Amino acid sequence: MSASPPLFVVLAAGKGTRMKSSEPKVLHKIAGQSMLAHVLATVSDVQGDVAVVVGPGMEAVATEARRVTPPAQVFVQATQQGTADAVLAARPALAGHSGDVVVLYADTPLIRPETVARLRAALDAGAHIAVLGFRAKDPTGYGRLLTDPKGTLSAIREEKDASEAERRIDLCNSGVMAFRVPDVAKLLGQIGNANAKGEFYLTDAIEIGVRSGLRAGVVECSEDEVLGVNARDQLAEAEAIWQKRARAQFMASGVTMIAPETVWLSFDTQIAPDVVIEPHVIFGVGVTIEEGVRILGFSHFEGAVIGKDARVGPFSRFRPGARIGADAHVGNFVEVKNTTLGPGAKANHLAYLGDGVIGAKANVGAGTVFCNYDGYAKHKTEIGEGAFIGSNSSLVAPVTIGAGAYVGSGSVITRDVTPGALALERSSQEERPGWAEKFRTLMLRRKATK
Amino acid sequence: MSASPPLFVVLAAGKGTRMKSSEPKVLHKIAGQSMLAHVLATVSDVQGDVAVVVGPGMEAVATEARRVTPPAQVFVQATQQGTADAVLAARPALAGHSGDVVVLYADTPLIRPETVARLRAALDAGAHIAVLGFRAKDPTGYGRLLTDPKGTLSAIREEKDASEAERRIDLCNSGVMAFRVPDVAKLLGQIGNANAKGEFYLTDAIEIGVRSGLRAGVVECSEDEVLGVNARDQLAEAEAIWQKRARAQFMASGVTMIAPETVWLSFDTQIAPDVVIEPHVIFGVGVTIEEGVRILGFSHFEGAVIGKDARVGPFSRFRPGARIGADAHVGNFVEVKNTTLGPGAKANHLAYLGDGVIGAKANVGAGTVFCNYDGYAKHKTEIGEGAFIGSNSSLVAPVTIGAGAYVGSGSVITRDVTPGALALERSSQEERPGWAEKFRTLMLRRKATK
Amino acid sequence: MSASPPLFVVLAAGKGTRMKSSEPKVLHKIAGQSMLAHVLATVSDVQGDVAVVVGPGMEAVATEARRVTPPAQVFVQATQQGTADAVLAARPALAGHSGDVVVLYADTPLIRPETVARLRAALDAGAHIAVLGFRAKDPTGYGRLLTDPKGTLSAIREEKDASEAERRIDLCNSGVMAFRVPDVAKLLGQIGNANAKGEFYLTDAIEIGVRSGLRAGVVECSEDEVLGVNARDQLAEAEAIWQKRARAQFMASGVTMIAPETVWLSFDTQIAPDVVIEPHVIFGVGVTIEEGVRILGFSHFEGAVIGKDARVGPFSRFRPGARIGADAHVGNFVEVKNTTLGPGAKANHLAYLGDGVIGAKANVGAGTVFCNYDGYAKHKTEIGEGAFIGSNSSLVAPVTIGAGAYVGSGSVITRDVTPGALALERSSQEERPGWAEKFRTLMLRRKATK
Repeated sequence: MSASPPLFVVLAAGKGTRMKSSEPKVLHKIAGQSMLAHVLATVSDVQGDVAVVVGPGMEAVATEARRVTPPAQVFVQATQQGTADAVLAARPALAGHSGDVVVLYADTPLIRPETVARLRAALDAGAHIAVLGFRAKDPTGYGRLLTDPKGTLSAIREEKDASEAERRIDLCNSGVMAFRVPDVAKLLGQIGNANAKGEFYLTDAIEIGVRSGLRAGVVECSEDEVLGVNARDQLAEAEAIWQKRARAQFMASGVTMIAPETVWLSFDTQIAPDVVIEPHVIFGVGVTIEEGVRILGFSHFEGAVIGKDARVGPFSRFRPGARIGADAHVGNFVEVKNTTLGPGAKANHLAYLGDGVIGAKANVGAGTVFCNYDGYAKHKTEIGEGAFIGSNSSLVAPVTIGAGAYVGSGSVITRDVTPGALALERSSQEERPGWAEKFRTLMLRRKATK
Repeated sequence: MSASPPLFVVLAAGKGTRMKSSEPKVLHKIAGQSMLAHVLATVSDVQGDVAVVVGPGMEAVATEARRVTPPAQVFVQATQQGTADAVLAARPALAGHSGDVVVLYADTPLIRPETVARLRAALDAGAHIAVLGFRAKDPTGYGRLLTDPKGTLSAIREEKDASEAERRIDLCNSGVMAFRVPDVAKLLGQIGNANAKGEFYLTDAIEIGVRSGLRAGVVECSEDEVLGVNARDQLAEAEAIWQKRARAQFMASGVTMIAPETVWLSFDTQIAPDVVIEPHVIFGVGVTIEEGVRILGFSHFEGAVIGKDARVGPFSRFRPGARIGADAHVGNFVEVKNTTLGPGAKANHLAYLGDGVIGAKANVGAGTVFCNYDGYAKHKTEIGEGAFIGSNSSLVAPVTIGAGAYVGSGSVITRDVTPGALALERSSQEERPGWAEKFRTLMLRRKATK
Repeated sequence: MSASPPLFVVLAAGKGTRMKSSEPKVLHKIAGQSMLAHVLATVSDVQGDVAVVVGPGMEAVATEARRVTPPAQVFVQATQQGTADAVLAARPALAGHSGDVVVLYADTPLIRPETVARLRAALDAGAHIAVLGFRAKDPTGYGRLLTDPKGTLSAIREEKDASEAERRIDLCNSGVMAFRVPDVAKLLGQIGNANAKGEFYLTDAIEIGVRSGLRAGVVECSEDEVLGVNARDQLAEAEAIWQKRARAQFMASGVTMIAPETVWLSFDTQIAPDVVIEPHVIFGVGVTIEEGVRILGFSHFEGAVIGKDARVGPFSRFRPGARIGADAHVGNFVEVKNTTLGPGAKANHLAYLGDGVIGAKANVGAGTVFCNYDGYAKHKTEIGEGAFIGSNSSLVAPVTIGAGAYVGSGSVITRDVTPGALALERSSQEERPGWAEKFRTLMLRRKATK
């Protein structure tokens, strides 16, 4: 291993016109996180430096690059003149750097940390340049890796320049490369642009390097891992691969997914063993599910913690700040936002619980609404332990319902309720005998005369 | 190209017994539209005539055939005696017709306009009869297209009559054919029924035609395109192929689908670029989504327009006549029917908005219901710009809430509210101290004595 | 056929450590039913005895085995010493038994009754032992079935003992076996444990039997059918195979599934012909759907009966005891539990209907809640024929709304309503002119001074 920490150069300057988007390509998300952030996360466990190369005006990409910990250095590639040119845009970083240099791509977000480690290990094993290759199901269009029987790489041959025999090679170039040479910038500086597009190609580094006595090697990974995203169908494909991986990991760790292909996870989802997940569930970012939880179908989570052995769904909606206690139940058509439910509390039907605290074993009836918003500010609703909120009640925040209190169905509660009391807001029920019959007769007559 | 416009003969007389349905087979739907209508739409851009051949008593199919613009002519095949007999049921249309004749099938709904055009182009290139063929993954059971090295078709050989060598041919007959002959009826009239089933097969036209000096050619398409639907699993298969095509087109045009295989589109769905669609969304007929809209999971649309940069879902339900303004928000467990939301208006939780007009930037609280129905007629609710409807309110239509007005939570509003006013319908909150404790003691005692 | 009824020995003692579950492996569910129950159901139509072998302390598994009709005998395998040892744990059942013995596995839940019948038919055809084999896509790791050209089985060769030629055999051992020998216990008693793991393998019965003159044969089934479940990904795989089978059967019988792969069925789901099911629907246990029903997307059923031509969903939730009458409509965000809707009744939006009876053609408005629970007991709500419940009403059970009566929107109804009457619980609407404007000014000033 090189004594100095490595430098990761992440190319993120591509315009991504095939995305047909007003947003830069590498900010499009997979599993709730930008593709760029995925690549930065892949190298985040490695002690080293990260340089991200963006295009002119891509301030949003630069911001995303600086958002991670530790923040990446950002360099601008003034004009798009090929991959070698892009790497050289990070020349200030290269200049002060004596360790390995690894070139990654922000639009190739599925590469695994282990794979990056294997690539660097190839340098330790004696290669000056290590290229990440893959066996393509259909190699058409890819550059082929030409190797000798020992696996030493002699050149990368572009499709159009390849002989018949070379085209039959299925070992293809992913573009990802690692260098252990005294001066990467100098090596790349020798690359010319005497080609149809007039661009400087990083792949030419192999031929130039080998000619000058450097040893180049190949490290193989699966084709899935180096899928490049240039259009929205490829974005969906990358998402599918990511999801499949994540689901498999959760199932291996003891999570039951009745229909894994209908469960959508985020990059930071945490699910404990013996959780059972019904079909059709979406986990947005920031969700933790504790052991033994049962999630019924059609549930949607974001920024929520669901406590041990709780039962939620179907049709439950959790928004940021939802904290569901152990053994609590949240049922259908219930939305929880910035609200804590104590252990064993229940809100089983048709309720909006926003900006509240609900005590242990309290029961919130169907149709209850926490009226948390007055058009200007959000206010807090507190419900004490063991309280019972009758159906269709409106709790106008700020308001506190005391422990063990009852709220009568259909009440609008605007003042605090004493513990153990019953609170009611209700008129007396009136009846107009025969009214419905008269109304019916009138209506039918009207219809008839129309 | 033939000088005269073509005649499309669409065969729709099949009983479809394997569908096990009380509904005629060709009225079963794909992407919200009958299979027959799909085929009619395929040829609707061509200047020409359309004849649909139905079975006796299939009035519903005839109605569907006449529903399109321009309406198709309908002919009844009196007894089901094979495909040639079916085409000849349209004899009156054939008689007065001098252009090309193209035979299509109402239970083969996935054929593309381009493919029909290529078939007709084969006639322009010199063929008297052009047959649409496909390379079958498993050709067992299909008629094989026997061609010479130049691609000229000599015969269609049924499986049972085929030699060993012929059975190895994977180029199969789709049944779709185009004719440029002086008198199609005369040609088909020569077809006999000396076969096991005693039926008149359209495929025999090739051998008869070639024998009398006509040139027959083959146009190839993908197997998917000519999938015939005879049972509900094939209906689902055709649906799947259609959906895959449609999703790919939307993604290519700049729509993000996180999980395309969980998004279901209709034949007339329109989605603009830079729309992001979460997993699990259903688009029924008549839906338009404008640029920049974000659709959260578990949303269901029908007859709705969602304006630029609006944010809808999860668990939103849009029914015909929903018109959502730019930047508006419609949230979870909200149903919108025949109601317009102005720009920036919000209805974020648990509401039923039927037959209304909501002004710009108005805020409709959780649990609000537009009481639009009195058991006989539907009435209108109007909410002015910037108004604030407190949670759990009932607006009894017809009723108007003035601009900037407030409605207190839990109110039943039966009279118009003046702009800028606060309207309330509420009793005073009462409290019965200790009631809950007594009730609890009573209940527990009852349980104990049971 | 053997004169005596067969004995099925179902092995269920495996610990299933790879499941990483606190629950015994064979109690994990497929299609809403434990794997063990699936296997027991497979043999439930056969007149015979069933012995289930469990591990020490697996009381929950024993309970499940005894739950079926007729209850299985349960035997405990004291120490896990291999499959032959497991079968011999049922020695008391074997001792008193003269018919065929069939060994099945509780973690191999997809085997079909027809396959078991074919296995037993092989005994009728002269085999003393019949082994269920399958052609493996990838045979690596499986025992190979060595057969002569006539199909007679000579041995089962474990992977590690197999020659190169034997490894190329793709006919593999499923473990399922049937015996027609005078004394199965005696045969199995000859199996030794002189192998690496020191276990007694049932497969050795073949070699021992053949050596002593018994004839062994092979019955083939598809690989899918004998999928063994040892981890949660395999549980999901078995679920997927089961669901695919069940969907295909329903489609063949005349049910339309627009997106079959998004519809999840239970082991006991019943669906009549000409039912149309939109994408994304979950059928829990105990559901019957009658002819002509249309189910819109995102619906969730459990213990419910939906009557002829009813229309339900989207976003409908049916819980045990929901009984929906013919032509009734249940719409979005409506939950029905232990409640009967009469023919033609409607509850189209945002309602909770628990523990009630709703008369024919009654109309339940949006936001209606049956307040069935007082914190201790559940009470009943009755709505008469043709009654009209205004929106956002709360019906506090026990309560009866007479036939044809009206309940005004937003009312809390605590006393019975006379047929044909109008019941109202409402205060008078008040208005505070200019209040909203003043409030707005105040709020904006506050924000400004913060």
